[in-house]
Amino acid sequence: MNHDDWVRRELRGLSQSLGFQYTPIKEIEKRHARLRGNMEKEEIEGLLVVQKMNLYYLSGTTQVGLLFISLEGKPLLMVKRELERSKVESPIKEIVLLKSIREIPTLIQTHYGKLPNSLGLELDVLPVRDYFKYQELFAGTKFIDASPVLREGRKIKSPFEIDLMRKAGEIGEKVYKEAKKILKKGMTEIEFGGLLEAVAKKYGHEGLLRVRSLNYEAYTWHVLSGIAGGIVSQSDSPMGGLGLSPAFPVGASLKIMKAHEPILVDFGTCFHGYQADETRMFSIGKMKQKFVDAYNACKEIHDAVLEKTRPGMDCEAIFLKTLRLAEKLGYKNSYLGPPGLQTRFIGHGIGLELNELPFIAQGQSYPLEQGMTFAVEPKIVFPGEGSVGLENTVVVTETGYEILTPVSQNIFQV
Amino acid sequence: MNHDDWVRRELRGLSQSLGFQYTPIKEIEKRHARLRGNMEKEEIEGLLVVQKMNLYYLSGTTQVGLLFISLEGKPLLMVKRELERSKVESPIKEIVLLKSIREIPTLIQTHYGKLPNSLGLELDVLPVRDYFKYQELFAGTKFIDASPVLREGRKIKSPFEIDLMRKAGEIGEKVYKEAKKILKKGMTEIEFGGLLEAVAKKYGHEGLLRVRSLNYEAYTWHVLSGIAGGIVSQSDSPMGGLGLSPAFPVGASLKIMKAHEPILVDFGTCFHGYQADETRMFSIGKMKQKFVDAYNACKEIHDAVLEKTRPGMDCEAIFLKTLRLAEKLGYKNSYLGPPGLQTRFIGHGIGLELNELPFIAQGQSYPLEQGMTFAVEPKIVFPGEGSVGLENTVVVTETGYEILTPVSQNIFQV
Repeated sequence: MNHDDWVRRELRGLSQSLGFQYTPIKEIEKRHARLRGNMEKEEIEGLLVVQKMNLYYLSGTTQVGLLFISLEGKPLLMVKRELERSKVESPIKEIVLLKSIREIPTLIQTHYGKLPNSLGLELDVLPVRDYFKYQELFAGTKFIDASPVLREGRKIKSPFEIDLMRKAGEIGEKVYKEAKKILKKGMTEIEFGGLLEAVAKKYGHEGLLRVRSLNYEAYTWHVLSGIAGGIVSQSDSPMGGLGLSPAFPVGASLKIMKAHEPILVDFGTCFHGYQADETRMFSIGKMKQKFVDAYNACKEIHDAVLEKTRPGMDCEAIFLKTLRLAEKLGYKNSYLGPPGLQTRFIGHGIGLELNELPFIAQGQSYPLEQGMTFAVEPKIVFPGEGSVGLENTVVVTETGYEILTPVSQNIFQV
Repeated sequence: MNHDDWVRRELRGLSQSLGFQYTPIKEIEKRHARLRGNMEKEEIEGLLVVQKMNLYYLSGTTQVGLLFISLEGKPLLMVKRELERSKVESPIKEIVLLKSIREIPTLIQTHYGKLPNSLGLELDVLPVRDYFKYQELFAGTKFIDASPVLREGRKIKSPFEIDLMRKAGEIGEKVYKEAKKILKKGMTEIEFGGLLEAVAKKYGHEGLLRVRSLNYEAYTWHVLSGIAGGIVSQSDSPMGGLGLSPAFPVGASLKIMKAHEPILVDFGTCFHGYQADETRMFSIGKMKQKFVDAYNACKEIHDAVLEKTRPGMDCEAIFLKTLRLAEKLGYKNSYLGPPGLQTRFIGHGIGLELNELPFIAQGQSYPLEQGMTFAVEPKIVFPGEGSVGLENTVVVTETGYEILTPVSQNIFQV
């Protein structure tokens, strides 16, 4: 059978019968309209979208290709592989085959009758070698970093997006419910986490939490028990865990989880690219009182953040308030990491990537807006002993917030 | 307790008790010596290593930081996070704290007494925005793309590296042995694959197969059954599967695996960063004869590649030979993908990344060398029906090859 014919006839029906949701054309059009407004302000005549999540956000597909958006005229999706599939996935009308990157100027010229005078590129992630190629291909064109414009465009989530995040949260709920049945004495961190991941995938978790960064690597989850939870590693987070080797020194390890230790389970889920992130505490037998107390402090800080979560509140002010509260509660030196290694954020935007706007963090003085989504995650770390934390993903509503990760906040004791 | 003190006193012992192996100083020195030889040829005076796997290869750690290597003088590792941990992981003597990227020239100046006239950077992956920063920081310095030099340096694996790949292969062996017990009628692809992944992680699989690319994404495994195995997707591989959504349209889906369908399990494992990749076929009840026949053709092609695998043999010639053999066996239009979408490689180098040298592929005319490692993976695809394949990871020895993925090549029938 011919592959293309099969895709045209069968792929949509098969995919939808298995739960695929395609981004509606109206949704894409609204996103483009907002983006064009920002492009105009920055004097970007044309924008070449390369990075996978931007491509998905603006076209509905993640097939390998590039999307060209101009201030005037219809968007042009150029697909290297796989063309017929991209036509099923994307509601964009103009989709053409791209055999080689060298064809891009010709395709744009054919489509619009001219090349843009200024071209936006995602310079925060685009490799230098590719940039040099574009300079060759678009001689005389002015290049502008379009990353801020794209980031800005994605910061307010639509009801369609929030619904997908809610579904990611529902997968997380199932994971935590099954986790209590899975956790057994004598298991290693990685064995427990691996089984949780299998549960999540069974329910449609895509197995990625994307972070916009060259070198960032981690599972979508941490299982950190006792001393392993007191270890800081590479990433900008309060604790990193031991990991499996110097090549992957982060997250769960082959350490056996012991009775009464704090077991921190930070589990993110991803549905149709949209993420929900949450943390809960587990223990085998009763958790040592020191960690129970610290966890209650995390809850208090978490609730204090949510109490301030509504449109108009300043992100940095919320963060600074938690510093004062942590100090008052007696955790000045263990809040968000050990001394010298403490992180400077209590919340991070979340959507298609983990490091989106807004950041509830030092130096991030701007107001919360309706439709922003972020994860709030107070954590307390005791080196050589362990760590505790609580995390939920929320959306800012007209008057407050909605929690997208509706799992009991009690310690899960088995 | 102070975190840094704890790390200095306890981290090495704890890590080693859980199986961590650190790269020996002799190994690092040999790698640097080979690299310096290549740098000299390309007139690269200093090299700033950023990308995680190059950093690991040349320093033994993956903590966040940069490694500076010059033609003369000792290497300098500058670590942002986490410094004390990097000192445990890396045998490099000169390791210093890097607070900001702006400090790099000063640190190099302090360490060497001068800045390099030419600086190598990994331009195949380095983001443009970072490049602009380096241009500012190293005004007057000539920048050279050091990616080819680094890639060349990594193409021959040492006995230390091959041993880590062998261990990755041993994890894979355990996965396939347990897989036969796990596979049940009525399971979805993703449920089966998720459980295999949990098994692999339990035995130390790091959960990544790294590919040097901006947008590449996939699990470390595919489970593709029946029609899902006949679908091509984004990446340059013979089949992609359906995946879970338009945001992740690759690999296993929520499709239920049916009796008599071909079930292709392409499972890669990773131990201390080193990878082994392999594919085997499964079926519930007897597999349809058409697919059994195609699988036997894959075996014949696989064996024909290995028959030619020894130092001195030309990579492109081996690939072209398989094209002729596939045609002779009656699979001209289904070998390595459906017509118009067929890939042009039968093997890819493997080590710390999946797209390393050598490529057994069209246009890759150079000889195999002792110590090269690659995955050989003949696959046959029938759109609308399914696909089959066989894959092993091998190392080129003095007189032939050694298979690093020693699992039975029979169809696993349950």
